[in-house]
Amino acid sequence: MAKLGRAERVAYIVKTLVERPGEIIPLSYFAQRLGVGKSSISEDLAAVKAALEAAGSGTLRTVPGAAGGVAYWPLPSPAEQEEVLERLCEMLSAPERILPGGFIFMTDLITSPAWTARIGEIFAAHFRPQRPTCVLTVETKGIPLALMTARALNVPMVVARREGRVTEGPQVTISYVTGSRGRIETLTVGIRSIPRAARVLIIDDFIKAGGTARGLVDLVRQFEGAEVVGIGVLIQTAQPERKRVEGYLSLLTLEEVDEERGRVQIRPSRSVEKE
Amino acid sequence: MAKLGRAERVAYIVKTLVERPGEIIPLSYFAQRLGVGKSSISEDLAAVKAALEAAGSGTLRTVPGAAGGVAYWPLPSPAEQEEVLERLCEMLSAPERILPGGFIFMTDLITSPAWTARIGEIFAAHFRPQRPTCVLTVETKGIPLALMTARALNVPMVVARREGRVTEGPQVTISYVTGSRGRIETLTVGIRSIPRAARVLIIDDFIKAGGTARGLVDLVRQFEGAEVVGIGVLIQTAQPERKRVEGYLSLLTLEEVDEERGRVQIRPSRSVEKE
Repeated sequence: MAKLGRAERVAYIVKTLVERPGEIIPLSYFAQRLGVGKSSISEDLAAVKAALEAAGSGTLRTVPGAAGGVAYWPLPSPAEQEEVLERLCEMLSAPERILPGGFIFMTDLITSPAWTARIGEIFAAHFRPQRPTCVLTVETKGIPLALMTARALNVPMVVARREGRVTEGPQVTISYVTGSRGRIETLTVGIRSIPRAARVLIIDDFIKAGGTARGLVDLVRQFEGAEVVGIGVLIQTAQPERKRVEGYLSLLTLEEVDEERGRVQIRPSRSVEKE
Repeated sequence: MAKLGRAERVAYIVKTLVERPGEIIPLSYFAQRLGVGKSSISEDLAAVKAALEAAGSGTLRTVPGAAGGVAYWPLPSPAEQEEVLERLCEMLSAPERILPGGFIFMTDLITSPAWTARIGEIFAAHFRPQRPTCVLTVETKGIPLALMTARALNVPMVVARREGRVTEGPQVTISYVTGSRGRIETLTVGIRSIPRAARVLIIDDFIKAGGTARGLVDLVRQFEGAEVVGIGVLIQTAQPERKRVEGYLSLLTLEEVDEERGRVQIRPSRSVEKE
Protein backbone atom coordinates (compact mmCIF):
# COMPACT_ATOMS: atom_id res chain seq x y z
CA MET A 1 0.00 0.00 0.00
CA ALA A 2 1.29 3.52 -0.77
CA LYS A 3 2.31 5.54 2.28
CA LEU A 4 -0.74 7.33 3.66
CA GLY A 5 -1.22 10.41 5.84
CA ARG A 6 -2.80 10.35 9.29
CA ALA A 7 -6.40 10.91 8.14
CA GLU A 8 -6.08 8.12 5.55
CA ARG A 9 -4.54 5.76 8.10
CA VAL A 10 -7.33 6.51 10.55
CA ALA A 11 -9.91 5.76 7.84
CA TYR A 12 -8.32 2.37 7.15
CA ILE A 13 -8.03 1.52 10.85
CA VAL A 14 -11.64 2.44 11.65
CA LYS A 15 -12.99 0.52 8.65
CA THR A 16 -11.10 -2.60 9.71
CA LEU A 17 -12.14 -2.34 13.36
CA VAL A 18 -15.82 -1.57 12.73
CA GLU A 19 -16.15 -4.40 10.21
CA ARG A 20 -14.84 -6.88 12.78
CA PRO A 21 -16.55 -5.91 16.04
CA GLY A 22 -14.96 -7.29 19.18
CA GLU A 23 -12.01 -8.84 17.38
CA ILE A 24 -8.65 -8.02 18.93
CA ILE A 25 -6.41 -6.81 16.13
CA PRO A 26 -2.68 -6.51 16.87
CA LEU A 27 -1.14 -3.08 16.33
CA SER A 28 1.48 -4.81 14.18
CA TYR A 29 -1.31 -5.77 11.73
CA PHE A 30 -1.94 -2.08 11.03
CA ALA A 31 1.74 -1.11 11.22
CA GLN A 32 2.63 -3.69 8.58
CA ARG A 33 -0.20 -2.85 6.21
CA LEU A 34 0.24 0.90 6.53
CA GLY A 35 4.04 0.84 6.47
CA VAL A 36 4.53 2.87 9.65
CA GLY A 37 5.78 2.13 13.16
CA LYS A 38 3.58 0.95 15.99
CA SER A 39 3.98 4.30 17.71
CA SER A 40 2.29 6.02 14.75
CA ILE A 41 -0.55 3.52 15.00
CA SER A 42 -0.89 4.30 18.71
CA GLU A 43 -1.24 7.98 17.88
CA ASP A 44 -3.80 7.16 15.17
CA LEU A 45 -5.78 5.13 17.69
CA ALA A 46 -5.80 8.08 20.09
CA ALA A 47 -7.60 10.09 17.39
CA VAL A 48 -10.12 7.26 16.93
CA LYS A 49 -10.71 7.10 20.67
CA ALA A 50 -11.25 10.86 20.87
CA ALA A 51 -13.81 10.72 18.05
CA LEU A 52 -15.75 7.86 19.63
CA GLU A 53 -15.75 9.58 23.01
CA ALA A 54 -16.98 12.83 21.51
CA ALA A 55 -19.77 10.94 19.72
CA GLY A 56 -20.59 8.89 22.84
CA SER A 57 -21.14 5.88 20.60
CA GLY A 58 -18.89 2.86 20.36
CA THR A 59 -15.76 2.21 22.33
CA LEU A 60 -12.17 1.12 21.77
CA ARG A 61 -10.53 -1.48 24.02
CA THR A 62 -6.78 -1.83 24.13
CA VAL A 63 -5.49 -5.20 25.27
CA PRO A 64 -1.83 -5.15 26.37
CA GLY A 65 0.67 -8.00 26.05
CA ALA A 66 1.88 -10.40 23.37
CA ALA A 67 -1.62 -11.48 22.32
CA GLY A 68 -2.79 -7.89 22.68
CA GLY A 69 -4.11 -5.31 20.28
CA VAL A 70 -7.15 -3.17 19.88
CA ALA A 71 -10.83 -4.03 19.49
CA TYR A 72 -13.90 -1.98 18.63
CA TRP A 73 -17.10 -2.60 20.55
CA PRO A 74 -20.31 -1.10 19.21
CA LEU A 75 -22.03 0.69 22.08
CA PRO A 76 -24.99 2.83 21.08
CA SER A 77 -25.43 5.86 23.31
CA PRO A 78 -28.57 6.03 25.51
CA ALA A 79 -29.98 8.64 23.10
CA GLU A 80 -29.37 6.36 20.11
CA GLN A 81 -30.97 3.42 21.93
CA GLU A 82 -34.02 5.47 22.83
CA GLU A 83 -34.36 6.70 19.26
CA VAL A 84 -34.30 3.12 17.89
CA LEU A 85 -36.93 1.90 20.36
CA GLU A 86 -39.22 4.90 19.83
CA ARG A 87 -39.02 4.50 16.09
CA LEU A 88 -39.80 0.77 16.33
CA CYS A 89 -42.89 1.51 18.46
CA GLU A 90 -44.04 4.07 15.94
CA MET A 91 -43.74 1.59 13.08
CA LEU A 92 -45.30 -1.30 15.01
CA SER A 93 -48.38 0.73 15.99
CA ALA A 94 -49.48 1.25 12.40
CA PRO A 95 -53.07 -0.09 12.21
CA GLU A 96 -52.36 -1.94 8.94
CA ARG A 97 -50.08 -4.25 10.90
CA ILE A 98 -52.99 -5.80 12.81
CA LEU A 99 -53.66 -9.38 11.72
CA PRO A 100 -56.75 -11.52 12.42
CA GLY A 101 -56.61 -12.84 15.97
CA GLY A 102 -54.97 -9.71 17.34
CA PHE A 103 -51.50 -10.56 16.08
CA ILE A 104 -49.15 -7.91 14.73
CA PHE A 105 -47.23 -8.25 11.49
CA MET A 106 -43.62 -7.61 12.42
CA THR A 107 -41.72 -9.99 10.14
CA ASP A 108 -40.32 -7.15 8.03
CA LEU A 109 -38.70 -5.53 11.06
CA ILE A 110 -37.31 -8.65 12.74
CA THR A 111 -35.74 -9.79 9.46
CA SER A 112 -34.45 -6.34 8.48
CA PRO A 113 -30.64 -6.26 8.41
CA ALA A 114 -30.53 -2.60 9.46
CA TRP A 115 -33.03 -2.85 12.34
CA THR A 116 -31.76 -6.16 13.67
CA ALA A 117 -28.20 -4.76 13.61
CA ARG A 118 -29.31 -1.80 15.76
CA ILE A 119 -31.32 -4.00 18.14
CA GLY A 120 -28.46 -6.50 18.36
CA GLU A 121 -26.13 -3.70 19.41
CA ILE A 122 -28.55 -2.66 22.15
CA PHE A 123 -28.74 -6.23 23.47
CA ALA A 124 -24.96 -6.51 23.27
CA ALA A 125 -24.49 -3.26 25.20
CA HIS A 126 -26.72 -4.59 28.00
CA PHE A 127 -25.33 -8.09 28.24
CA ARG A 128 -21.62 -7.56 27.54
CA PRO A 129 -20.87 -7.19 31.30
CA GLN A 130 -22.21 -10.77 31.76
CA ARG A 131 -19.46 -11.98 29.38
CA PRO A 132 -21.61 -14.36 27.30
CA THR A 133 -19.66 -16.90 25.24
CA CYS A 134 -22.53 -17.74 22.89
CA VAL A 135 -25.99 -16.53 21.88
CA LEU A 136 -28.80 -19.11 21.76
CA THR A 137 -32.11 -18.70 19.95
CA VAL A 138 -34.84 -20.86 18.48
CA GLU A 139 -35.70 -21.12 14.80
CA THR A 140 -36.96 -19.20 12.82
CA LYS A 141 -37.85 -15.68 13.81
CA GLY A 142 -35.26 -15.24 16.55
CA ILE A 143 -32.33 -15.93 14.23
CA PRO A 144 -31.68 -12.46 12.71
CA LEU A 145 -31.78 -10.75 16.12
CA ALA A 146 -29.59 -13.44 17.68
CA LEU A 147 -27.10 -13.30 14.83
CA MET A 148 -26.72 -9.53 15.05
CA THR A 149 -26.40 -9.69 18.84
CA ALA A 150 -23.74 -12.39 18.51
CA ARG A 151 -21.97 -10.27 15.91
CA ALA A 152 -21.87 -7.25 18.22
CA LEU A 153 -20.53 -9.48 21.03
CA ASN A 154 -18.12 -11.38 18.74
CA VAL A 155 -19.36 -14.79 19.93
CA PRO A 156 -20.97 -17.73 18.06
CA MET A 157 -24.72 -18.08 17.60
CA VAL A 158 -26.48 -21.37 18.27
CA VAL A 159 -29.93 -22.19 16.88
CA ALA A 160 -32.21 -24.66 18.66
CA ARG A 161 -34.50 -26.43 16.20
CA ARG A 162 -37.97 -27.89 16.46
CA GLU A 163 -36.88 -31.14 14.85
CA GLY A 164 -33.51 -32.85 14.75
CA ARG A 165 -31.50 -33.09 11.51
CA VAL A 166 -28.83 -35.53 10.46
CA THR A 167 -26.62 -32.62 9.43
CA GLU A 168 -26.35 -31.46 13.04
CA GLY A 169 -24.64 -34.62 14.29
CA PRO A 170 -25.47 -35.92 17.78
CA GLN A 171 -28.13 -33.82 19.45
CA VAL A 172 -29.81 -33.09 22.77
CA THR A 173 -33.59 -32.85 22.71
CA ILE A 174 -36.02 -31.75 25.40
CA SER A 175 -39.79 -31.50 25.55
CA TYR A 176 -41.57 -28.56 27.09
CA VAL A 177 -45.05 -27.10 27.43
CA THR A 178 -45.76 -23.95 25.41
CA GLY A 179 -47.13 -21.31 27.72
CA SER A 180 -49.76 -19.88 25.48
CA ARG A 181 -51.19 -22.98 23.84
CA GLY A 182 -50.40 -25.62 26.48
CA ARG A 183 -48.99 -27.89 23.77
CA ILE A 184 -46.01 -30.17 24.11
CA GLU A 185 -43.17 -29.05 21.85
CA THR A 186 -39.58 -30.18 21.44
CA LEU A 187 -36.35 -28.25 21.18
CA THR A 188 -33.19 -29.81 19.90
CA VAL A 189 -29.62 -28.60 19.61
CA GLY A 190 -26.39 -30.16 18.34
CA ILE A 191 -24.12 -31.43 21.12
CA ARG A 192 -21.10 -29.77 19.55
CA SER A 193 -22.91 -26.48 19.14
CA ILE A 194 -22.77 -25.45 22.80
CA PRO A 195 -19.16 -25.03 23.95
CA ARG A 196 -18.03 -26.47 27.30
CA ALA A 197 -18.87 -24.31 30.31
CA ALA A 198 -20.71 -21.96 27.98
CA ARG A 199 -22.07 -18.67 29.28
CA VAL A 200 -25.27 -18.58 27.25
CA LEU A 201 -27.23 -15.47 26.31
CA ILE A 202 -30.75 -16.35 25.13
CA ILE A 203 -32.23 -13.97 22.52
CA ASP A 204 -35.72 -14.14 21.03
CA ASP A 205 -38.15 -11.84 19.27
CA PHE A 206 -41.23 -12.27 21.42
CA ILE A 207 -42.28 -13.47 24.87
CA LYS A 208 -45.87 -14.04 25.93
CA ALA A 209 -46.15 -16.71 28.63
CA GLY A 210 -42.45 -17.58 28.45
CA GLY A 211 -42.78 -21.30 27.68
CA THR A 212 -40.23 -21.27 24.89
CA ALA A 213 -37.73 -19.24 26.91
CA ARG A 214 -38.20 -21.71 29.78
CA GLY A 215 -37.57 -24.56 27.30
CA LEU A 216 -34.33 -22.92 26.15
CA VAL A 217 -33.19 -22.51 29.76
CA ASP A 218 -33.93 -26.20 30.39
CA LEU A 219 -32.05 -27.13 27.22
CA VAL A 220 -28.93 -25.28 28.43
CA ARG A 221 -29.12 -27.19 31.73
CA GLN A 222 -28.42 -30.42 29.85
CA PHE A 223 -24.91 -29.19 29.06
CA GLU A 224 -22.36 -29.69 31.81
CA GLY A 225 -21.07 -26.44 33.21
CA ALA A 226 -23.20 -24.34 30.86
CA GLU A 227 -25.05 -21.43 32.38
CA VAL A 228 -27.66 -18.92 31.19
CA VAL A 229 -26.20 -15.47 31.85
CA GLY A 230 -29.07 -13.46 30.36
CA ILE A 231 -32.32 -13.53 28.41
CA GLY A 232 -33.19 -10.73 26.01
CA VAL A 233 -36.42 -10.38 24.05
CA LEU A 234 -37.45 -7.63 21.69
CA ILE A 235 -41.15 -7.57 22.66
CA GLN A 236 -42.95 -8.79 25.75
CA THR A 237 -46.72 -8.82 26.07
CA ALA A 238 -48.08 -7.02 29.13
CA GLN A 239 -50.36 -10.03 29.74
CA PRO A 240 -49.90 -12.52 31.34
CA GLU A 241 -47.88 -10.50 33.83
CA ARG A 242 -46.22 -13.59 35.26
CA LYS A 243 -43.95 -15.31 32.77
CA ARG A 244 -42.33 -18.72 33.08
CA VAL A 245 -38.87 -17.14 33.23
CA GLU A 246 -37.66 -14.34 35.46
CA GLY A 247 -35.10 -11.60 35.16
CA TYR A 248 -35.25 -11.22 31.41
CA LEU A 249 -34.68 -7.99 29.54
CA SER A 250 -37.44 -6.84 27.22
CA LEU A 251 -36.98 -3.78 25.02
CA LEU A 252 -40.64 -3.14 24.12
CA THR A 253 -43.93 -3.92 25.85
CA LEU A 254 -47.05 -4.69 23.85
CA GLU A 255 -49.91 -3.43 25.98
CA GLU A 256 -52.89 -4.09 23.79
CA VAL A 257 -54.05 -4.82 20.28
CA ASP A 258 -57.59 -3.55 19.71
CA GLU A 259 -58.66 -5.25 16.51
CA GLU A 260 -62.01 -3.45 16.29
CA ARG A 261 -60.71 0.07 16.63
CA GLY A 262 -57.49 -0.75 14.79
CA ARG A 263 -55.30 0.41 17.64
CA VAL A 264 -51.97 -1.01 18.83
CA GLN A 265 -50.44 0.09 22.10
CA ILE A 266 -46.73 -0.61 22.30
CA ARG A 267 -44.03 1.29 24.22
CA PRO A 268 -40.42 0.95 25.30
CA SER A 269 -40.39 -1.29 28.39
CA ARG A 270 -40.46 0.83 31.53
CA SER A 271 -37.89 -0.96 33.63
CA VAL A 272 -35.58 -2.14 30.93
CA GLU A 273 -33.61 -4.20 33.45
CA LYS A 274 -36.03 -6.21 35.59
CA GLU A 275 -33.72 -8.30 37.78
CA MET B 1 -19.88 17.50 20.06
CA ALA B 2 -16.59 19.31 20.70
CA LYS B 3 -14.82 20.57 17.58
CA LEU B 4 -12.62 17.80 16.24
CA GLY B 5 -9.56 17.73 13.99
CA ARG B 6 -9.45 16.10 10.57
CA ALA B 7 -8.30 12.64 11.79
CA GLU B 8 -11.03 12.59 14.45
CA ARG B 9 -13.68 13.68 11.93
CA VAL B 10 -12.57 10.98 9.52
CA ALA B 11 -12.83 8.39 12.32
CA TYR B 12 -16.41 9.44 13.06
CA ILE B 13 -17.40 9.50 9.38
CA VAL B 14 -15.95 6.06 8.64
CA LYS B 15 -17.54 4.52 11.74
CA THR B 16 -20.95 5.87 10.72
CA LEU B 17 -20.63 4.78 7.09
CA VAL B 18 -19.28 1.29 7.77
CA GLU B 19 -21.95 0.60 10.39
CA ARG B 20 -24.67 1.44 7.86
CA PRO B 21 -23.54 -0.20 4.61
CA GLY B 22 -25.22 1.07 1.47
CA GLU B 23 -27.16 3.80 3.26
CA ILE B 24 -26.91 7.20 1.61
CA ILE B 25 -25.99 9.68 4.33
CA PRO B 26 -26.27 13.39 3.47
CA LEU B 27 -23.11 15.45 3.89
CA SER B 28 -25.18 17.83 6.02
CA TYR B 29 -25.64 15.00 8.56
CA PHE B 30 -21.90 14.97 9.16
CA ALA B 31 -21.50 18.75 8.88
CA GLN B 32 -24.12 19.29 11.56
CA ARG B 33 -22.79 16.70 13.98
CA LEU B 34 -19.16 17.70 13.54
CA GLY B 35 -19.79 21.44 13.52
CA VAL B 36 -17.96 22.15 10.28
CA GLY B 37 -18.96 23.19 6.75
CA LYS B 38 -19.85 20.76 4.01
CA SER B 39 -16.64 21.61 2.17
CA SER B 40 -14.61 20.27 5.11
CA ILE B 41 -16.67 17.09 5.00
CA SER B 42 -15.92 16.77 1.28
CA GLU B 43 -12.21 17.00 2.03
CA ASP B 44 -12.57 14.42 4.81
CA LEU B 45 -14.33 12.09 2.39
CA ALA B 46 -11.47 12.45 -0.08
CA ALA B 47 -9.14 11.08 2.59
CA VAL B 48 -11.54 8.17 3.21
CA LYS B 49 -11.70 7.44 -0.50
CA ALA B 50 -7.90 7.47 -0.81
CA ALA B 51 -7.58 5.02 2.08
CA LEU B 52 -10.15 2.60 0.62
CA GLU B 53 -8.53 2.76 -2.80
CA ALA B 54 -5.09 2.11 -1.36
CA ALA B 55 -6.48 -0.88 0.55
CA GLY B 56 -8.45 -2.11 -2.47
CA SER B 57 -11.28 -3.06 -0.17
CA GLY B 58 -14.61 -1.28 0.13
CA THR B 59 -15.77 1.65 -1.90
CA LEU B 60 -17.39 5.04 -1.42
CA ARG B 61 -20.26 6.20 -3.63
CA THR B 62 -21.19 9.85 -3.81
CA VAL B 63 -24.75 10.57 -4.89
CA PRO B 64 -25.28 14.16 -6.08
CA GLY B 65 -28.47 16.21 -5.72
CA ALA B 66 -30.97 17.10 -3.02
CA ALA B 67 -31.48 13.49 -1.87
CA GLY B 68 -27.76 12.89 -2.28
CA GLY B 69 -24.96 12.07 0.06
CA VAL B 70 -22.38 9.41 0.50
CA ALA B 71 -22.64 5.66 0.99
CA TYR B 72 -20.12 2.96 1.85
CA TRP B 73 -20.29 -0.37 0.02
CA PRO B 74 -18.29 -3.26 1.39
CA LEU B 75 -16.32 -4.76 -1.48
CA PRO B 76 -13.72 -7.33 -0.47
CA SER B 77 -10.71 -7.37 -2.78
CA PRO B 78 -10.12 -10.52 -4.90
CA ALA B 79 -7.26 -11.45 -2.52
CA GLU B 80 -9.56 -11.10 0.50
CA GLN B 81 -12.25 -13.19 -1.19
CA GLU B 82 -9.78 -15.91 -2.07
CA GLU B 83 -8.44 -15.96 1.47
CA VAL B 84 -11.94 -16.40 2.93
CA LEU B 85 -12.79 -19.25 0.55
CA GLU B 86 -9.46 -21.06 1.07
CA ARG B 87 -9.82 -20.80 4.83
CA LEU B 88 -13.39 -22.16 4.68
CA CYS B 89 -12.23 -25.16 2.60
CA GLU B 90 -9.47 -25.82 5.09
CA MET B 91 -11.90 -25.83 8.01
CA LEU B 92 -14.56 -27.87 6.18
CA SER B 93 -12.10 -30.62 5.22
CA ALA B 94 -11.32 -31.52 8.83
CA PRO B 95 -12.09 -35.28 9.14
CA GLU B 96 -13.94 -34.77 12.46
CA ARG B 97 -16.63 -32.93 10.51
CA ILE B 98 -17.76 -36.09 8.71
CA LEU B 99 -21.16 -37.28 9.92
CA PRO B 100 -22.82 -40.66 9.36
CA GLY B 101 -24.24 -40.84 5.85
CA GLY B 102 -21.43 -38.77 4.36
CA PHE B 103 -22.78 -35.43 5.56
CA ILE B 104 -20.48 -32.67 6.76
CA PHE B 105 -21.02 -30.74 9.95
CA MET B 106 -20.97 -27.08 8.93
CA THR B 107 -23.55 -25.52 11.23
CA ASP B 108 -20.91 -23.65 13.24
CA LEU B 109 -19.64 -21.88 10.10
CA ILE B 110 -22.98 -21.03 8.49
CA THR B 111 -24.27 -19.57 11.77
CA SER B 112 -21.03 -17.73 12.62
CA PRO B 113 -21.54 -13.94 12.58
CA ALA B 114 -17.97 -13.30 11.43
CA TRP B 115 -17.89 -15.88 8.63
CA THR B 116 -21.39 -15.17 7.36
CA ALA B 117 -20.55 -11.45 7.29
CA ARG B 118 -17.51 -12.16 5.09
CA ILE B 119 -19.42 -14.55 2.81
CA GLY B 120 -22.34 -12.11 2.60
CA GLU B 121 -19.95 -9.40 1.40
CA ILE B 122 -18.62 -11.73 -1.30
CA PHE B 123 -22.16 -12.50 -2.51
CA ALA B 124 -23.01 -8.79 -2.40
CA ALA B 125 -19.94 -7.90 -4.43
CA HIS B 126 -20.95 -10.38 -7.14
CA PHE B 127 -24.64 -9.54 -7.31
CA ARG B 128 -24.65 -5.76 -6.72
CA PRO B 129 -24.51 -5.08 -10.50
CA GLN B 130 -27.85 -6.97 -10.81
CA ARG B 131 -29.40 -4.37 -8.45
CA PRO B 132 -31.39 -6.80 -6.26
CA THR B 133 -34.15 -5.21 -4.18
CA CYS B 134 -34.48 -8.12 -1.74
CA VAL B 135 -32.73 -11.32 -0.69
CA LEU B 136 -34.83 -14.48 -0.42
CA THR B 137 -33.88 -17.64 1.44
CA VAL B 138 -35.57 -20.62 3.06
CA GLU B 139 -35.60 -21.39 6.76
CA THR B 140 -33.43 -22.32 8.68
CA LYS B 141 -29.84 -22.66 7.66
CA GLY B 142 -29.87 -20.12 4.84
CA ILE B 143 -30.95 -17.27 7.09
CA PRO B 144 -27.61 -16.05 8.49
CA LEU B 145 -25.98 -15.99 5.03
CA ALA B 146 -29.02 -14.28 3.50
CA LEU B 147 -29.19 -11.70 6.28
CA MET B 148 -25.53 -10.76 5.95
CA THR B 149 -25.83 -10.57 2.15
CA ALA B 150 -28.91 -8.35 2.50
CA ARG B 151 -27.02 -6.20 4.98
CA ALA B 152 -24.10 -5.71 2.59
CA LEU B 153 -26.59 -4.80 -0.17
CA ASN B 154 -28.78 -2.64 2.09
CA VAL B 155 -31.99 -4.43 1.05
CA PRO B 156 -34.59 -6.41 3.05
CA MET B 157 -34.34 -10.16 3.60
CA VAL B 158 -37.34 -12.44 3.07
CA VAL B 159 -37.59 -15.93 4.57
CA ALA B 160 -39.72 -18.61 2.92
CA ARG B 161 -41.04 -21.07 5.48
CA ARG B 162 -41.96 -24.72 5.38
CA GLU B 163 -45.28 -24.10 7.05
CA GLY B 164 -47.48 -21.03 7.12
CA ARG B 165 -47.94 -18.99 10.29
CA VAL B 166 -50.75 -16.72 11.36
CA THR B 167 -48.22 -14.03 12.24
CA GLU B 168 -47.21 -13.70 8.60
CA GLY B 169 -50.61 -12.51 7.39
CA PRO B 170 -51.85 -13.65 3.96
CA GLN B 171 -49.41 -16.01 2.28
CA VAL B 172 -48.53 -17.63 -1.01
CA THR B 173 -47.71 -21.34 -0.87
CA ILE B 174 -46.30 -23.65 -3.52
CA SER B 175 -45.49 -27.34 -3.57
CA TYR B 176 -42.35 -28.70 -5.16
CA VAL B 177 -40.37 -31.91 -5.42
CA THR B 178 -37.10 -32.06 -3.53
CA GLY B 179 -34.35 -33.10 -5.86
CA SER B 180 -32.43 -35.39 -3.59
CA ARG B 181 -35.23 -37.23 -1.83
CA GLY B 182 -38.03 -36.93 -4.38
CA ARG B 183 -40.43 -35.82 -1.64
CA ILE B 184 -43.16 -33.24 -1.98
CA GLU B 185 -42.45 -30.19 0.15
CA THR B 186 -44.10 -26.81 0.49
CA LEU B 187 -42.68 -23.31 0.60
CA THR B 188 -44.68 -20.39 1.86
CA VAL B 189 -44.03 -16.67 2.04
CA GLY B 190 -46.02 -13.69 3.24
CA ILE B 191 -47.70 -11.73 0.46
CA ARG B 192 -46.51 -8.45 1.92
CA SER B 193 -42.95 -9.71 2.26
CA ILE B 194 -42.05 -9.51 -1.43
CA PRO B 195 -42.20 -5.93 -2.69
CA ARG B 196 -43.91 -5.12 -6.00
CA ALA B 197 -41.73 -5.70 -9.06
CA ALA B 198 -39.06 -7.09 -6.76
CA ARG B 199 -35.64 -7.98 -8.12
CA VAL B 200 -35.00 -11.05 -6.01
CA LEU B 201 -31.60 -12.49 -5.12
CA ILE B 202 -31.89 -16.08 -3.83
CA ILE B 203 -29.25 -17.10 -1.27
CA ASP B 204 -28.84 -20.53 0.33
CA ASP B 205 -26.16 -22.53 2.08
CA PHE B 206 -26.15 -25.71 0.01
CA ILE B 207 -27.26 -27.01 -3.37
CA LYS B 208 -27.30 -30.67 -4.33
CA ALA B 209 -29.96 -31.43 -6.95
CA GLY B 210 -31.38 -27.91 -6.81
CA GLY B 211 -34.98 -28.79 -5.95
CA THR B 212 -35.29 -26.18 -3.22
CA ALA B 213 -33.70 -23.47 -5.36
CA ARG B 214 -36.15 -24.40 -8.14
CA GLY B 215 -39.00 -24.13 -5.60
CA LEU B 216 -37.85 -20.65 -4.57
CA VAL B 217 -37.71 -19.57 -8.23
CA ASP B 218 -41.27 -20.87 -8.72
CA LEU B 219 -42.39 -19.07 -5.58
CA VAL B 220 -41.07 -15.75 -6.91
CA ARG B 221 -43.03 -16.32 -10.16
CA GLN B 222 -46.27 -16.06 -8.19
CA PHE B 223 -45.58 -12.38 -7.54
CA GLU B 224 -46.50 -10.04 -10.32
CA GLY B 225 -43.55 -8.28 -11.84
CA ALA B 226 -41.10 -10.01 -9.52
CA GLU B 227 -37.97 -11.43 -11.08
CA VAL B 228 -35.06 -13.59 -9.88
CA VAL B 229 -31.89 -11.64 -10.66
CA GLY B 230 -29.43 -14.11 -9.16
CA ILE B 231 -28.94 -17.29 -7.14
CA GLY B 232 -25.98 -17.64 -4.80
CA VAL B 233 -25.09 -20.72 -2.76
CA LEU B 234 -22.16 -21.26 -0.49
CA ILE B 235 -21.56 -24.92 -1.37
CA GLN B 236 -22.56 -26.99 -4.38
CA THR B 237 -22.02 -30.72 -4.62
CA ALA B 238 -20.09 -31.89 -7.70
CA GLN B 239 -22.75 -34.62 -8.17
CA PRO B 240 -25.33 -34.59 -9.69
CA GLU B 241 -23.68 -32.36 -12.27
CA ARG B 242 -27.03 -31.24 -13.64
CA LYS B 243 -29.03 -29.16 -11.18
CA ARG B 244 -32.65 -28.10 -11.42
CA VAL B 245 -31.60 -24.45 -11.70
CA GLU B 246 -29.07 -22.89 -14.03
CA GLY B 247 -26.74 -19.94 -13.87
CA TYR B 248 -26.28 -19.91 -10.14
CA LEU B 249 -23.13 -18.79 -8.39
CA SER B 250 -21.51 -21.28 -6.03
CA LEU B 251 -18.52 -20.31 -3.94
CA LEU B 252 -17.31 -23.79 -2.97
CA THR B 253 -17.61 -27.21 -4.60
CA LEU B 254 -17.84 -30.36 -2.51
CA GLU B 255 -16.20 -33.07 -4.62
CA GLU B 256 -16.35 -36.04 -2.32
CA VAL B 257 -16.81 -37.20 1.23
CA ASP B 258 -15.00 -40.48 1.85
CA GLU B 259 -16.42 -41.72 5.13
CA GLU B 260 -14.16 -44.74 5.39
CA ARG B 261 -10.87 -42.94 4.91
CA GLY B 262 -12.11 -39.83 6.70
CA ARG B 263 -11.39 -37.54 3.76
CA VAL B 264 -13.32 -34.52 2.54
CA GLN B 265 -12.54 -32.93 -0.81
CA ILE B 266 -13.81 -29.38 -1.09
CA ARG B 267 -12.41 -26.47 -3.09
CA PRO B 268 -13.31 -22.97 -4.26
CA SER B 269 -15.60 -23.37 -7.29
CA ARG B 270 -13.53 -23.20 -10.46
CA SER B 271 -15.75 -21.00 -12.55
CA VAL B 272 -17.18 -18.80 -9.86
CA GLU B 273 -19.57 -17.22 -12.36
CA LYS B 274 -21.24 -19.98 -14.34
CA GLU B 275 -23.70 -18.19 -16.56
